[in-house]
Amino acid sequence: MKKIAVINGPNMNLLGKREPEKYGNLTLESVNQAISQKAEEWGARCEFFQSNSEGELVGAVQNASAADGVILNAAAYTHYSVAIRDAIAAIDAPVIEVHMSNVHAREEFRRQSVIAPVCAGSVAGFGAKSYILALYALTR
Amino acid sequence: MKKIAVINGPNMNLLGKREPEKYGNLTLESVNQAISQKAEEWGARCEFFQSNSEGELVGAVQNASAADGVILNAAAYTHYSVAIRDAIAAIDAPVIEVHMSNVHAREEFRRQSVIAPVCAGSVAGFGAKSYILALYALTR
Amino acid sequence: MKKIAVINGPNMNLLGKREPEKYGNLTLESVNQAISQKAEEWGARCEFFQSNSEGELVGAVQNASAADGVILNAAAYTHYSVAIRDAIAAIDAPVIEVHMSNVHAREEFRRQSVIAPVCAGSVAGFGAKSYILALYALTR
Amino acid sequence: MKKIAVINGPNMNLLGKREPEKYGNLTLESVNQAISQKAEEWGARCEFFQSNSEGELVGAVQNASAADGVILNAAAYTHYSVAIRDAIAAIDAPVIEVHMSNVHAREEFRRQSVIAPVCAGSVAGFGAKSYILALYALTR
Amino acid sequence: MKKIAVINGPNMNLLGKREPEKYGNLTLESVNQAISQKAEEWGARCEFFQSNSEGELVGAVQNASAADGVILNAAAYTHYSVAIRDAIAAIDAPVIEVHMSNVHAREEFRRQSVIAPVCAGSVAGFGAKSYILALYALTR
Amino acid sequence: MKKIAVINGPNMNLLGKREPEKYGNLTLESVNQAISQKAEEWGARCEFFQSNSEGELVGAVQNASAADGVILNAAAYTHYSVAIRDAIAAIDAPVIEVHMSNVHAREEFRRQSVIAPVCAGSVAGFGAKSYILALYALTR
Amino acid sequence: MKKIAVINGPNMNLLGKREPEKYGNLTLESVNQAISQKAEEWGARCEFFQSNSEGELVGAVQNASAADGVILNAAAYTHYSVAIRDAIAAIDAPVIEVHMSNVHAREEFRRQSVIAPVCAGSVAGFGAKSYILALYALTR
Amino acid sequence: MKKIAVINGPNMNLLGKREPEKYGNLTLESVNQAISQKAEEWGARCEFFQSNSEGELVGAVQNASAADGVILNAAAYTHYSVAIRDAIAAIDAPVIEVHMSNVHAREEFRRQSVIAPVCAGSVAGFGAKSYILALYALTR
Amino acid sequence: MKKIAVINGPNMNLLGKREPEKYGNLTLESVNQAISQKAEEWGARCEFFQSNSEGELVGAVQNASAADGVILNAAAYTHYSVAIRDAIAAIDAPVIEVHMSNVHAREEFRRQSVIAPVCAGSVAGFGAKSYILALYALTR
Amino acid sequence: MKKIAVINGPNMNLLGKREPEKYGNLTLESVNQAISQKAEEWGARCEFFQSNSEGELVGAVQNASAADGVILNAAAYTHYSVAIRDAIAAIDAPVIEVHMSNVHAREEFRRQSVIAPVCAGSVAGFGAKSYILALYALTR
Amino acid sequence: MKKIAVINGPNMNLLGKREPEKYGNLTLESVNQAISQKAEEWGARCEFFQSNSEGELVGAVQNASAADGVILNAAAYTHYSVAIRDAIAAIDAPVIEVHMSNVHAREEFRRQSVIAPVCAGSVAGFGAKSYILALYALTR
Amino acid sequence: MKKIAVINGPNMNLLGKREPEKYGNLTLESVNQAISQKAEEWGARCEFFQSNSEGELVGAVQNASAADGVILNAAAYTHYSVAIRDAIAAIDAPVIEVHMSNVHAREEFRRQSVIAPVCAGSVAGFGAKSYILALYALTR
Repeated sequence: MKKIAVINGPNMNLLGKREPEKYGNLTLESVNQAISQKAEEWGARCEFFQSNSEGELVGAVQNASAADGVILNAAAYTHYSVAIRDAIAAIDAPVIEVHMSNVHAREEFRRQSVIAPVCAGSVAGFGAKSYILALYALTR
Repeated sequence: MKKIAVINGPNMNLLGKREPEKYGNLTLESVNQAISQKAEEWGARCEFFQSNSEGELVGAVQNASAADGVILNAAAYTHYSVAIRDAIAAIDAPVIEVHMSNVHAREEFRRQSVIAPVCAGSVAGFGAKSYILALYALTR
Repeated sequence: MKKIAVINGPNMNLLGKREPEKYGNLTLESVNQAISQKAEEWGARCEFFQSNSEGELVGAVQNASAADGVILNAAAYTHYSVAIRDAIAAIDAPVIEVHMSNVHAREEFRRQSVIAPVCAGSVAGFGAKSYILALYALTR
Repeated sequence: MKKIAVINGPNMNLLGKREPEKYGNLTLESVNQAISQKAEEWGARCEFFQSNSEGELVGAVQNASAADGVILNAAAYTHYSVAIRDAIAAIDAPVIEVHMSNVHAREEFRRQSVIAPVCAGSVAGFGAKSYILALYALTR
Repeated sequence: MKKIAVINGPNMNLLGKREPEKYGNLTLESVNQAISQKAEEWGARCEFFQSNSEGELVGAVQNASAADGVILNAAAYTHYSVAIRDAIAAIDAPVIEVHMSNVHAREEFRRQSVIAPVCAGSVAGFGAKSYILALYALTR
Repeated sequence: MKKIAVINGPNMNLLGKREPEKYGNLTLESVNQAISQKAEEWGARCEFFQSNSEGELVGAVQNASAADGVILNAAAYTHYSVAIRDAIAAIDAPVIEVHMSNVHAREEFRRQSVIAPVCAGSVAGFGAKSYILALYALTR
Repeated sequence: MKKIAVINGPNMNLLGKREPEKYGNLTLESVNQAISQKAEEWGARCEFFQSNSEGELVGAVQNASAADGVILNAAAYTHYSVAIRDAIAAIDAPVIEVHMSNVHAREEFRRQSVIAPVCAGSVAGFGAKSYILALYALTR
Repeated sequence: MKKIAVINGPNMNLLGKREPEKYGNLTLESVNQAISQKAEEWGARCEFFQSNSEGELVGAVQNASAADGVILNAAAYTHYSVAIRDAIAAIDAPVIEVHMSNVHAREEFRRQSVIAPVCAGSVAGFGAKSYILALYALTR
Repeated sequence: MKKIAVINGPNMNLLGKREPEKYGNLTLESVNQAISQKAEEWGARCEFFQSNSEGELVGAVQNASAADGVILNAAAYTHYSVAIRDAIAAIDAPVIEVHMSNVHAREEFRRQSVIAPVCAGSVAGFGAKSYILALYALTR
Repeated sequence: MKKIAVINGPNMNLLGKREPEKYGNLTLESVNQAISQKAEEWGARCEFFQSNSEGELVGAVQNASAADGVILNAAAYTHYSVAIRDAIAAIDAPVIEVHMSNVHAREEFRRQSVIAPVCAGSVAGFGAKSYILALYALTR
Repeated sequence: MKKIAVINGPNMNLLGKREPEKYGNLTLESVNQAISQKAEEWGARCEFFQSNSEGELVGAVQNASAADGVILNAAAYTHYSVAIRDAIAAIDAPVIEVHMSNVHAREEFRRQSVIAPVCAGSVAGFGAKSYILALYALTR
Repeated sequence: MKKIAVINGPNMNLLGKREPEKYGNLTLESVNQAISQKAEEWGARCEFFQSNSEGELVGAVQNASAADGVILNAAAYTHYSVAIRDAIAAIDAPVIEVHMSNVHAREEFRRQSVIAPVCAGSVAGFGAKSYILALYALTR
């Protein structure tokens, strides 16, 4: 059974309450449940982590070193956290960058991802389904 | 049954021969077959198109207006074709930007996508599986 | 009787269907008819050409070398086609750059025109009337 | 009868004397006369204003609020006057940006227009005829 | 009793008429009255000046040299008037930069203030209350 | 009685000790006391929070969602914390950006605020009085 | 006898009062007198003009068209006034750009002169003597 | 006998007619003849192709995969065609970039070549002789 | 006996495991031991701190205010942490910037250090020996 | 008697032969003679030096440390020689930057002077007379 | 018999020893011999010069003024030596820019040539054969 | 016994006289003596070289090819000498970049080092002790 770490960055704890026209009405808990369910179907087990703190996210990525894959929505840190980038580069597990919204259709600064060059792949724009696609990529 | 247009841009006809360390050994035909097979499994039918010509790709996107979704690997045109961008914006069908390689880990100029802001979502870095993820997004 | 070439670029064939809030409801055919009618009134004859292909547009500009004037809406190619620019510089006929929408009120990248420096003049923002103004400039 | 305000910016009072290879030999008075004549033919009445002062031009645009249209050659101020831009945005009358020369074929800094995004349309490169085209657009 | 100069830049005379969704419905006169009233309450006397002319605003700042403070809404000139900047630097009275709207939430070019580095402080985004805050800063 | 959250960012705990020529001799505690006193006078109650951690500041902004207003001096994070920006955009309470020094008169990089576009307003340059002005804006 | 126009821009009327460590203690009147005296010695007659208004400076340059030379200290307008630049280009008289301080040793933005390319020459950094050098160049 | 592909890009079909002061009076046919003659002398056989279409040029480069060398004058596409660049990188044959004029002595944008990094070498500025030099490099 | 604080930033806890071709095989513990040993030899005592959290690093720098010197390897935060920069500027102890690898020979973004201007000096490229050099500078 | 060093940079030895439409027909020797003559008239003695070598020019500036002034035409090195800049900053004698042509009316890169910020003043555009003006400034 | 100057810039004296994977194993002497031999065959005589000094290279270009052509590999100075550029522009002999490696396939800064705009043509990427191609261009 | 080359660039011969607040009062000779002494203590022998000439510095680096290490303070050339960079890359001996002052705390342009990417390491900001640290790195 594959072990997948699902890591969410700052303000993702507000999911469902924050700007629903961009992120939908689902809470992070229900999104995680949907992921868990799919994971089970596809023979994988997910561990979930969310933090607003860059340092804790660095730690979470480090801790996922032994996982079979990491699904990472670094949210705002995507655009400037070299610390998270270095953590991704430091571990062996493949990391997939995930965004719920299409970041390219928003403010200019959201088009830059400092973590993308060290990730294995990226998925963006499908709402909660973005996580499912990343899970599919890691498990099927 | 959903109808999906799968459109590939310049030099994708060389797939399997061209820089296999970046794109793998599969030819475009075998990739398309794999997509068709999955599509059938997921209740969809795909039509495939490849061209080296920007103008023909504009036409192909226009022709896909009535499809349930478009999977578009615009290849090199991704980075400068405003013409393809305008075609995407002009049709109603959702278009998903797909890349086999992780474009962000390559030359700087490949990090800019002029079509991303008008696509529904994007998938990159999973090799031939990138198309399958896009298909999943459009059909599941 | 003056001979005027009216050349339209990519996606202009969708006129009337594509983003009507920007371009209005008139089809390209009806716009062309309106131009023809005015041309007749002002003692000129128009030939119309539309293509999504940059290469064919280069050819169309070259073919208009002997015309008394060219009305060119290069659409998306306006912003990057050095090939069309070179064709304009290569012919003797004066070329007028035309846009239906006010390109300066849209995305930043639409404010750059690589063809403007080699055109005789430019008209933008008047919808279908932009062509009529260019025709007026060439014939009156 | 339509009321059109024709506003000219700095150094336009030198027309006919200043760099005639760029602007021709006509004085501003004779250009204005030609515009008036055409206006009469097309059922409109023009009021003319010229100033070297940015502040007075702001005032002239404000005063044209009730006109049916404004033909504005902001000359040098085109490239940096946010004050005139704000005046244009503040009034209801449509403003057409006019230039006698093809500004895109001159110095790089002349290619930037800070007023273009708030104008209804623009006409450039036709010498004195640029004003006539703008008049045509507002009256026909 | 403190003497405060309140100086408003181009198009502020249109206040209440111009883009009310940005600036509210109050006219400049009523804003000034509100300021005067507060000033009286706080033991100060205000003198008001508005101009569309950069040169006159330079003069107004120079004339305020002996005031106890200057409240300056340079409006559009905020973004490029080095002349006003130099006037501010040349006088002894502290100058407070004021904006009614949040200039940072508007067009990119409005985020640059060439006068900010020589002002004592700045207040933006509180509508007419921005002036009151500046007055408070100078008098309390 | 209005509830106002007063949030201070990194190194603000050193206030009074750190670079007094820029920030004065008051400690953060005495500044907070002064704010509390004024708040009481103006019918409001303040809650104070300071942290050097970006993640905790994100949390503090989230927690202030139900407040009547937030006074935020994000200090160094002002210039790059998209995470704090997103938190501000996610809550309903109006947030006022506050700086003690005139950030525009210091290093170039301090002139960029990534949080300004999503704040309701901003106040800078008045030392400890900057907080009082923000409080006035939220309560009077 | 040669006729020389000496034109000074915004805030030069404050000379002697404004930032004396940069500009010295001489008033503009005494500088002008020194220039007049030298001019007489060198067989020339000077006419002096100062204004804070860009438009009036444009006019002053235009009016100097018949002079044997123009000594122009455009002060702050040096850095952005395309209007003054166009006036300089429009007249036949040679214009010499003059600055009292060494503009290159001050803020970065003062290093750009939009008028320099159309002036005959430039002199900077010699205090009031800068005018004398320009006079020497025009008369000896 | 070596096999060399000689590929010319947009507007090269106008050679001899277009801007002869830049490109000389020779037509493309006579240039090709001169190349053929030299090739024969040096034991090689050339195949010639010209197109205004980017897509066809991509195809021509792909088709030259088995040649002993490619002489490519991509003309205008030199400056932006990532599609042609990718085709060059995809084939094994060495490609030599050729320009008749010295592109560095012309407009700034002509100094950028997106294909240069993947070519084996480049020759520019020798008129028709540029092709001969490239031929020499490939055959001697 | 001098007191030296040795502070390490994000991912330095992975030293010896992470990208050994860049950072060597030594763990952070063994590096610290080597530093301690040298310190003892040179009459100093070191205190060690490592954190992935920017806020904790800000705190660690603040806490080192009374030390005789700080050796700081801010790792990824070097490139964007204005918060750490402000902490360095706020304390009296001299801070030496240290990097194990030659940051200038890596990605472009690693060449920018926002903390360098407020450090006393910097040492980079000597592996674990970089710390020893900094220690030498502070103690000998 | 004042001692003035006159230092000329690369290619100035070609004066009179090189591009006479830009620099006139006078040789460097005759220019130097004219300067010497004027110097004698104004109670000064000049020493002349020319070199194409940056290092020798650095030395020449160092050697002029005891002069009453330096007239320096650094020619091409003006635009990038930080070494000469540092030499100028290192000596006590005032250095005046001189150019014969108006460098601002030529290529863009000639508008940047890396030595200007450390010079006392600058004179440009008066041909050989530029040196005389600098001499006047140093001696009168 | 034509006289050709062959000038090599800094570090070219290391040819054969320095980075042989980029420049091959031939020494400069053997390259020069090969050139001499070809020159004899083509009726020309070459004079060779190499220097690490920018000033000496300026002199060498000046001295080649009477040659029938100059083959110049300015090596590192290619990218910033305006002094060499000015020397090239000052002489009548045509200068051909030569590089052994494909400079466009290396570091970004090597893609800028400040001398290219004043050279007659350029050849790059053919190893020692680059010189032969330039010789061919000058003699055949 | 290790052999170390110590190479100093332009204006370093003025050490002790030039801007002592930046570089201290020690002359280059006394600095070199201090280095020699330490070298002896650490079993190494130093050879010293200083030049203002870029070309001679290139030569000095080349000559140090057989040394066990090079300590290089390229001074002003640090910021633009690609020639010195290429010499460093061409030799086998490790080169350490040294600066006495903290170059990052000075003018912006001093923050760029074109030689850093090819050096083994760098040391800056410790005055004369910077050389000692580099020596320590090479010998201990």
